[in-house]
Amino acid sequence: MVIVMAPDATPDSIDSLVDLVAAAGGEAYVTRGVSRTIIGLVGDVQQFETLDLRAKPGVSDVLRISVPYKLVSRENHVSRSVVRVQGVPIGGDNMTVIAGPCAVETPEQTLEAARMAGAAGASLLRGGAYKPRTSPYAFQGLGETGLKILSEVREETGLPIVTEVVDAADVELVATYADMLQIGTRNMQNFALLQAAGEAGKPVLLKRGMNATIEEWLMAAEYIAQRGNLDVVLCERGIRTFEKATRNTLDISAVPVAQRLSHLPVIVDPSHSGGRRDLVLPLSRAAIAVGADGIIVDVHPEPENALCDGPQALVDEDVAELADMAGTLSALVGRTLTPAPQREPVRT
Amino acid sequence: MVIVMAPDATPDSIDSLVDLVAAAGGEAYVTRGVSRTIIGLVGDVQQFETLDLRAKPGVSDVLRISVPYKLVSRENHVSRSVVRVQGVPIGGDNMTVIAGPCAVETPEQTLEAARMAGAAGASLLRGGAYKPRTSPYAFQGLGETGLKILSEVREETGLPIVTEVVDAADVELVATYADMLQIGTRNMQNFALLQAAGEAGKPVLLKRGMNATIEEWLMAAEYIAQRGNLDVVLCERGIRTFEKATRNTLDISAVPVAQRLSHLPVIVDPSHSGGRRDLVLPLSRAAIAVGADGIIVDVHPEPENALCDGPQALVDEDVAELADMAGTLSALVGRTLTPAPQREPVRT
Amino acid sequence: MVIVMAPDATPDSIDSLVDLVAAAGGEAYVTRGVSRTIIGLVGDVQQFETLDLRAKPGVSDVLRISVPYKLVSRENHVSRSVVRVQGVPIGGDNMTVIAGPCAVETPEQTLEAARMAGAAGASLLRGGAYKPRTSPYAFQGLGETGLKILSEVREETGLPIVTEVVDAADVELVATYADMLQIGTRNMQNFALLQAAGEAGKPVLLKRGMNATIEEWLMAAEYIAQRGNLDVVLCERGIRTFEKATRNTLDISAVPVAQRLSHLPVIVDPSHSGGRRDLVLPLSRAAIAVGADGIIVDVHPEPENALCDGPQALVDEDVAELADMAGTLSALVGRTLTPAPQREPVRT
Amino acid sequence: MVIVMAPDATPDSIDSLVDLVAAAGGEAYVTRGVSRTIIGLVGDVQQFETLDLRAKPGVSDVLRISVPYKLVSRENHVSRSVVRVQGVPIGGDNMTVIAGPCAVETPEQTLEAARMAGAAGASLLRGGAYKPRTSPYAFQGLGETGLKILSEVREETGLPIVTEVVDAADVELVATYADMLQIGTRNMQNFALLQAAGEAGKPVLLKRGMNATIEEWLMAAEYIAQRGNLDVVLCERGIRTFEKATRNTLDISAVPVAQRLSHLPVIVDPSHSGGRRDLVLPLSRAAIAVGADGIIVDVHPEPENALCDGPQALVDEDVAELADMAGTLSALVGRTLTPAPQREPVRT
Repeated sequence: MVIVMAPDATPDSIDSLVDLVAAAGGEAYVTRGVSRTIIGLVGDVQQFETLDLRAKPGVSDVLRISVPYKLVSRENHVSRSVVRVQGVPIGGDNMTVIAGPCAVETPEQTLEAARMAGAAGASLLRGGAYKPRTSPYAFQGLGETGLKILSEVREETGLPIVTEVVDAADVELVATYADMLQIGTRNMQNFALLQAAGEAGKPVLLKRGMNATIEEWLMAAEYIAQRGNLDVVLCERGIRTFEKATRNTLDISAVPVAQRLSHLPVIVDPSHSGGRRDLVLPLSRAAIAVGADGIIVDVHPEPENALCDGPQALVDEDVAELADMAGTLSALVGRTLTPAPQREPVRT
Repeated sequence: MVIVMAPDATPDSIDSLVDLVAAAGGEAYVTRGVSRTIIGLVGDVQQFETLDLRAKPGVSDVLRISVPYKLVSRENHVSRSVVRVQGVPIGGDNMTVIAGPCAVETPEQTLEAARMAGAAGASLLRGGAYKPRTSPYAFQGLGETGLKILSEVREETGLPIVTEVVDAADVELVATYADMLQIGTRNMQNFALLQAAGEAGKPVLLKRGMNATIEEWLMAAEYIAQRGNLDVVLCERGIRTFEKATRNTLDISAVPVAQRLSHLPVIVDPSHSGGRRDLVLPLSRAAIAVGADGIIVDVHPEPENALCDGPQALVDEDVAELADMAGTLSALVGRTLTPAPQREPVRT
Repeated sequence: MVIVMAPDATPDSIDSLVDLVAAAGGEAYVTRGVSRTIIGLVGDVQQFETLDLRAKPGVSDVLRISVPYKLVSRENHVSRSVVRVQGVPIGGDNMTVIAGPCAVETPEQTLEAARMAGAAGASLLRGGAYKPRTSPYAFQGLGETGLKILSEVREETGLPIVTEVVDAADVELVATYADMLQIGTRNMQNFALLQAAGEAGKPVLLKRGMNATIEEWLMAAEYIAQRGNLDVVLCERGIRTFEKATRNTLDISAVPVAQRLSHLPVIVDPSHSGGRRDLVLPLSRAAIAVGADGIIVDVHPEPENALCDGPQALVDEDVAELADMAGTLSALVGRTLTPAPQREPVRT
Repeated sequence: MVIVMAPDATPDSIDSLVDLVAAAGGEAYVTRGVSRTIIGLVGDVQQFETLDLRAKPGVSDVLRISVPYKLVSRENHVSRSVVRVQGVPIGGDNMTVIAGPCAVETPEQTLEAARMAGAAGASLLRGGAYKPRTSPYAFQGLGETGLKILSEVREETGLPIVTEVVDAADVELVATYADMLQIGTRNMQNFALLQAAGEAGKPVLLKRGMNATIEEWLMAAEYIAQRGNLDVVLCERGIRTFEKATRNTLDISAVPVAQRLSHLPVIVDPSHSGGRRDLVLPLSRAAIAVGADGIIVDVHPEPENALCDGPQALVDEDVAELADMAGTLSALVGRTLTPAPQREPVRT
């Protein structure tokens, strides 16, 4: 059982709930989030039912949910959520394109890729400054330098930034630059990182672990939510199977399945799942048609020189086709392609 | 190296090719198919090149292909094939819906399901008379009685029949009733069955093995083709992974990948891959959008009483939505929904 | 519910049971096997309980078993079975080595491999005359010529023969030469083949499908058993996973798991699972130590010239080590290495 | 190319190497470890060859290795390594048992489990104070309180402690208590954690990710080694497959494969791979027989009350059998069961 406190609940109201639960023989785990406090109860649920918790001061909601992912489940939250990144919506009747380079390499490459992203219909810019790489000898990203490049490009283009964080210790720093934090496939069960992201006060893009079941993915989202952050977007990016023709196997069914189980938006990464440029457009069409709330796509001005995942990046000749298709196909499934944010001209 | 003979090639022309190859130190494997003879050469390819085989009497084509699936590869067959089932096309600019009950149970149920299939936009009727079941105690299909029901329903509705064959010994019998032979996922590497189907003179629907790589799938198609039958349609129906929320994981990327490697049409089975009725429409949309040449869908008038796979069958309220979506979405990807065959009114 | 008839049950006794079940509103599926008749009942089990079936003439046993694999389950058959191949035992306190070439190529190669098998501690000779190959252009085995070579080598060495059958239509022919029929991994759910093997009157070695769950494997064995043949030996040979360093992943846990669920003997194929000669000895040790009832190993006098799977064959310098290890390690786990059959000198 | 510096190399010698490499057009990445400095070179290897790096002051070794895991590869380190945990060896001719409770719960439970570990033949004590759990509402371990319990039990029993760390930020704290740091399966690609562990000055037990290839596992070990810590022990603990009868599928072949590729010791976790008590002894036998350098086993005085993974823990009646088997079977494969450390009587 989970108690969701009102944003203005007082510390006293929380303390007295904890005492009440303890007196009833249970235990209460209090998590103070940025915007609200969550109290998880462990013990005899029927006993708790007698306490009339919903009527207590400061209590916003009391959830008794059968699935293990309490806060992200649709059981008590039937309408699907819209997550806003600097005003750009993901979810609802929107179909949102996120695009950008796999890795931030130089200011020029990033700016050029951002312009390609805009041409591809994107309303958010992706780009990695911290890259989790299989080899310690591979390019690991530019770190804070990369974050600064991203924020300059945001200044230039108006596109809010989605960027990955790989270590709980970096969350605070990355959150000062990023508009949305991305947690990558290899870190989906890095629980310390999930908890730190849950406390950072920024929306989170949570990639599915390449070997994670849908239930484990929702449990990872629950880790973030349990720290008071419900602005989580799920991203299907392919799972590991025996098939070798593609880097991973895009589990397209995971989109409707996750949407039925959770109120969180679900998007698809057609670039990393296939690992091949020639599959990005077909898989993007499949994603929009199946009902995804968005797609996240790699673009690069010069894929042959990319420091990371060049073979899967879209190039200039692809982006107009993507934008055109995304607009038309979204309409067909009752959605609207999210426009890039309107903004004042920037003085430089 | 593979020699494809012309349909009217004489036995003498074949014999002299075999002698020629033997004289050059090679071996020739002759396969006499219904419509053409295929000769596979084993030995020194450069030596064979000197024989000027393409100029010999009766030779239609000589293929020197780097991939192991010679006849179904796109390497020497760049345009994608159209397979016709009693005139109904699969492939090219068509998007073909096949629908019907998982198993033929009674004449009434089959006729009713065929009417649902028509309402769903189908131009071909599926239905199983021989069911490969995990348990020897489960319903194994009606056998020849089921085939007779199917042919009566074809008489009534005009829809050509696609039906499964599970044993090489049954191929001849099944082919007397069926318009297209289906080979199921568990039999994808039943090589005796593949060869028998290759000789039956009917188009073949070849489902991907649930644990087969795309290359193995194409090699299975090659077994059919090598017996002289190039009218093969590939069907992606989900692979086995660790994910448990769906019966299998639909490998949607396999459609564009197989289409790039092979000239054969590729369709998708959204019913068996997901195993859940609520996923059939979303996955059908994904399949058409990704560029599949068709879909094959379970329908049943009373899924709760179905003898086989009831939970995945579409019901009456779904079929109009499927037909409507299939028409609209096909147009968006440059295809036309294949209409049901025109026919004379049947007198009964 | 399943009725097992006594070997000497009369046709009348069977007919009257069928009538009895029908009168009680159920259905009876009669399978007349070579050595016994099996009657599967479908309907209301509690109703059947009132019929006192166990007391009827000709009835040997009535099984009410909760798992779907009735005849091969340990539920009503607690002691583990011993299967005898021409007197050579597999199961019980025995540890049986089967060895030989992957494919029969020539009389000399087969005889030499049989001598290596004997030196490796084998009491049964394996060798393939019918090879299921991924490519239709690959060596498919010598067919009946290969079976004749095997029987000549049996004459010479006294080792009973285990050989694969790949098509239901070939079972009768193969059974006239073989002492044990092998069903390969690709055919584990070729139900027509399983049923034919169930009626052939010879013990069957059933390899696990490379993508089959343990339950499906036991269901495949049930198909054989349901035709009256309980002389089935299960063989774990590796499953398909994402790991690429080995051909397949030997599921060593499947041995104790299957032995707990079924009374059938379970052996291990360390050659095909790893696909590498250097792994055969370590995996053989693991198999014996985990409690397998036997191992089946590839040996070849000249692996570099083998027509099939040369890289995994043991060579002369390995076989003495295998025999020595198998004897010592078997003793440590309370088993005895099965000796090669004693026999009269053969006159040639 | 990788330069390994001598333990007593001066800062000057390192600086001049960096300059030398830069002058040759390359880049040098310097990692200063606790016991030695590692310099990774990126650039033209043939150019580097001309620099005669091996002869420079302070250089211990220069590795030019074809595989991407340079430091843990056997290519330039043919003899297999022995890692010592407070004097207790893992690797070489030793077979080392690590045992203890999955989670530290109370002082009494931990002490009792440690006594069971000793009776099971263990020379090292495992026990988790930080537990990575799928659910944020599950027991997450006692944290530092748990570490203190472990160190008291070490005081009492003399067994050095192996314990998990789940966050890079905790490494320093955990290392003050632990004799060996464990990195769990979900964190195998938590690169920040790997690097922190590489700098902590304690040996590391690195579990294989449940979806990781063997190559990725060795790359994760390389991350630790690259920070100057070569005292890494690899632990195979089962991979994720479609099989549901066991929690994961123990990849027993991974032991000999990893031992051929890397000089690091490789041990097996039969408890977490199977997830069932009845499989622990058979899988332990398989592990020792296949040639593992050790096993790590869960024991618990009262599994039915365990806060974590009770169903897989060995109980009192199992431990003597394990110790007895481990001794006998180790001898058979040419190893000696590592004895528990001798120590002075502790005064309390």
